[in-house]
Amino acid sequence: MNNIEWKKEKNLSLLVDFYELTMTNGYLVNGDQDHIVYFDYFFRKVPDNGGFAITAGLQQFIDYLMEIEFSDMDIEFLKEMNIFEEKFLEYLKDFKFTGDVWAIPEGTPVFPNTPIITIKAPILEAQLIETMLLLSLNHQSLIATKSNRIARAANDKPVVDFGARRAHGADATIYGARACYIGGCLGTSNLLASKMFDIPVIGTIAHSWVQFYDDDHTAFKSYVKAFPDNAILLVDTYNVLGSGIPEAIKVFDELEGEGKKGIRLDSGDLDYLSKKARKLLDVAGYEDATITATNSLDEYQIRELERQGAPIDSYGVGERMITARSEAVFGGVYKLVAVETEEGISPRIKLSEEAVKVTNPGFKELWRLYDNRNGNAFADLITFKDEEVKAPYKLFDPLSPWINKTAKNFTAKKLQTLIVHNGELVYDFPTLDEIRDNLNNELSKLWDGLRRFDNPDRYFVNLSFDLWSEKQRLIEKYRNK
Amino acid sequence: MNNIEWKKEKNLSLLVDFYELTMTNGYLVNGDQDHIVYFDYFFRKVPDNGGFAITAGLQQFIDYLMEIEFSDMDIEFLKEMNIFEEKFLEYLKDFKFTGDVWAIPEGTPVFPNTPIITIKAPILEAQLIETMLLLSLNHQSLIATKSNRIARAANDKPVVDFGARRAHGADATIYGARACYIGGCLGTSNLLASKMFDIPVIGTIAHSWVQFYDDDHTAFKSYVKAFPDNAILLVDTYNVLGSGIPEAIKVFDELEGEGKKGIRLDSGDLDYLSKKARKLLDVAGYEDATITATNSLDEYQIRELERQGAPIDSYGVGERMITARSEAVFGGVYKLVAVETEEGISPRIKLSEEAVKVTNPGFKELWRLYDNRNGNAFADLITFKDEEVKAPYKLFDPLSPWINKTAKNFTAKKLQTLIVHNGELVYDFPTLDEIRDNLNNELSKLWDGLRRFDNPDRYFVNLSFDLWSEKQRLIEKYRNK
Repeated sequence: MNNIEWKKEKNLSLLVDFYELTMTNGYLVNGDQDHIVYFDYFFRKVPDNGGFAITAGLQQFIDYLMEIEFSDMDIEFLKEMNIFEEKFLEYLKDFKFTGDVWAIPEGTPVFPNTPIITIKAPILEAQLIETMLLLSLNHQSLIATKSNRIARAANDKPVVDFGARRAHGADATIYGARACYIGGCLGTSNLLASKMFDIPVIGTIAHSWVQFYDDDHTAFKSYVKAFPDNAILLVDTYNVLGSGIPEAIKVFDELEGEGKKGIRLDSGDLDYLSKKARKLLDVAGYEDATITATNSLDEYQIRELERQGAPIDSYGVGERMITARSEAVFGGVYKLVAVETEEGISPRIKLSEEAVKVTNPGFKELWRLYDNRNGNAFADLITFKDEEVKAPYKLFDPLSPWINKTAKNFTAKKLQTLIVHNGELVYDFPTLDEIRDNLNNELSKLWDGLRRFDNPDRYFVNLSFDLWSEKQRLIEKYRNK
Repeated sequence: MNNIEWKKEKNLSLLVDFYELTMTNGYLVNGDQDHIVYFDYFFRKVPDNGGFAITAGLQQFIDYLMEIEFSDMDIEFLKEMNIFEEKFLEYLKDFKFTGDVWAIPEGTPVFPNTPIITIKAPILEAQLIETMLLLSLNHQSLIATKSNRIARAANDKPVVDFGARRAHGADATIYGARACYIGGCLGTSNLLASKMFDIPVIGTIAHSWVQFYDDDHTAFKSYVKAFPDNAILLVDTYNVLGSGIPEAIKVFDELEGEGKKGIRLDSGDLDYLSKKARKLLDVAGYEDATITATNSLDEYQIRELERQGAPIDSYGVGERMITARSEAVFGGVYKLVAVETEEGISPRIKLSEEAVKVTNPGFKELWRLYDNRNGNAFADLITFKDEEVKAPYKLFDPLSPWINKTAKNFTAKKLQTLIVHNGELVYDFPTLDEIRDNLNNELSKLWDGLRRFDNPDRYFVNLSFDLWSEKQRLIEKYRNK
């Protein structure tokens, strides 16, 4: 299949790690295809050592889940590999996801080792969907987490995603722009993402415009001829203070009407230049003209500019946000946690040399506990699915159980919602603006200490006593095997 | 448009930074739409401070270029923004690229500030295609460059891309797998990429398989029942040396036939465990059983394992290759370099506070100079398009022109090829295997010093005297404006 054919049909059903198919074929060969199993999606570390991550990408994963369909061409391709059973290929022809999906809604602050998505399904189905689940959630959660850091650094000034050109392919720009918006950006330069997700789109001119007209004055005059109401001029093609800003002011002087006026700085010392620019604009009577800054910005650069009092009105952020350059991986994993047997749900565990990497077994519920005195979240709690959580409740550190306290005055909220039941979508996806509102609401309930970029406070994720005890039992059992 | 509709049609024509459209609309308003201009795509710094980068992504950009088409829905969407001229929307309806594209073929080692792609087209067309050109080339060149580093570290042992789950969306896995293969990987776990690009696909079992069967022995027995000829067993779910490897050996003992046997290690000290595993396998008579290592590998980890003599037969590399985690950005840019006027081709320049960031003006040719005594490339040379390059040729450092030498016995090769002429494809794209062969051939002509991961030797990129002189003239001209 050539690339153009593929783009026209874009069927992602074969976007699996190959072992998903060798395993599902293997389960069928062994007659184990009907076992119901439980998988959790979780992550182990917040990127950039931040205080929390932000969930995103659920809708794209569910879109995929609802439309998986192996075409005749796909089946033929697999058949020619000569390693799959005929009955397995027959099974794929009629594949449909029939299980349940619980998930934390998009735009929720989350913490390591908590189940963000839980899947209950026949083993074949639960296994087959792993790759797309992981890549959808890992990508968008990475970018939403990063963009939120950047938006926080900017102190409520607008941050716009300008990263399309440096993203890892078309999907990375499109869904990355979506995730940036969830995390707190005001808009994007990406027109397709704007169209698909109704995100505000922003953009005026590049250096090429100024180079084409050969001098700042002619270039700016030509631009405002086309867009008299949006005269945001790029002033650093040749010489910011010597030519760019003076010529911009001349063109503003010649402009009639009350349209938007402003400049963009894309190089040099943005603090120094923005202060100089502000003075020149103010002296010329353009106190309302805005200053936009771009050029390899991230939360650290913006934090410094804000500390220096740079009079920048908005930030355009490119490669360092759309690739999460400082830590470009969100390490979410998808682990088997339980198998239904004749005796009931049998919890399963994966061991590791590192205690923190041992998985939490069982079919579980995730709670967030809010202090009734101030409304703030003070801990997440993982229990088995059927446990109740009522005050007073004894919380303890799962790695150091002698550290404990009894919570008395709190409200416990279940974080996961049923999204898909028996293969049917039972959830109304919120709009992106609703997701942003949800995020702002949840963020307002986090202690400030979690918002620090460096050395944030630690948030406690507790296990119920029953779950912790079962985990210890399983560790003993498998260690001694 | 919802996401599912978009995926079914996947029309990327609107995947532009918004300013591409404000500018193209603006050129039309100013009556400048028919000017022929020249743009160069180049980069300024090799990621990870490496000695060279590797080009990739050209075919995907050209695919896009040949099929840009604004649908009625796209035009309607733009019309509703109420900022574009009617004649501009009419223009977009019939948009077709009519210009010329020269490019360095994929799988070529390249150096900073050399023109990798040159576009000659009417200004509207040349501007509109910027975003997709940049993201296609920047993404795949980034990953091809990284995967080549990793493949070099592995000393000709197979490296396989296992990164799908941590890539930045579906395209990043698919085209990332392609770029990994160009850079030197043996294969991928990504089945769709395998199907689309005919890349070998690899995969056996995950930890979930072992957890499902609850113990290593039952799990391995079940797996070889399905795949008796490919018994590559994952041995670290519970305890590598205590259970995983001993149970794998028992299952090998029970297997009939001469199929592939091996183990995969995915945690712990891969040097220590591989040496222990090798001994256990050898003592049991499985000298041919292979050891595959995975777990957060990159060129530095692999280099250390190779130095320690770890008896690893192949490496599976995930997140650190598919995201180029150590430096996740390939900073390629697309700059206007010349405008056709009534007096001929007028070179244009973009200045900067940093000398190295000033662009190379003009419509140019890029040459690679090979020493006839040993066949090795010793410099790249950028000239105006119509210059000849013959021995003896005086080369000088463009930033320090007093450093110079005269090259006497060399062969000069033009690196760019005409790909599209007057809007028509005039190039036969090579297969991926041909691209790999080309890369290996070119790499064999680079001095060893360029291959170091740390502090590689510097490769010289020279300008012809005429080009250098014109650049100095333009710097003076615009500085003094």
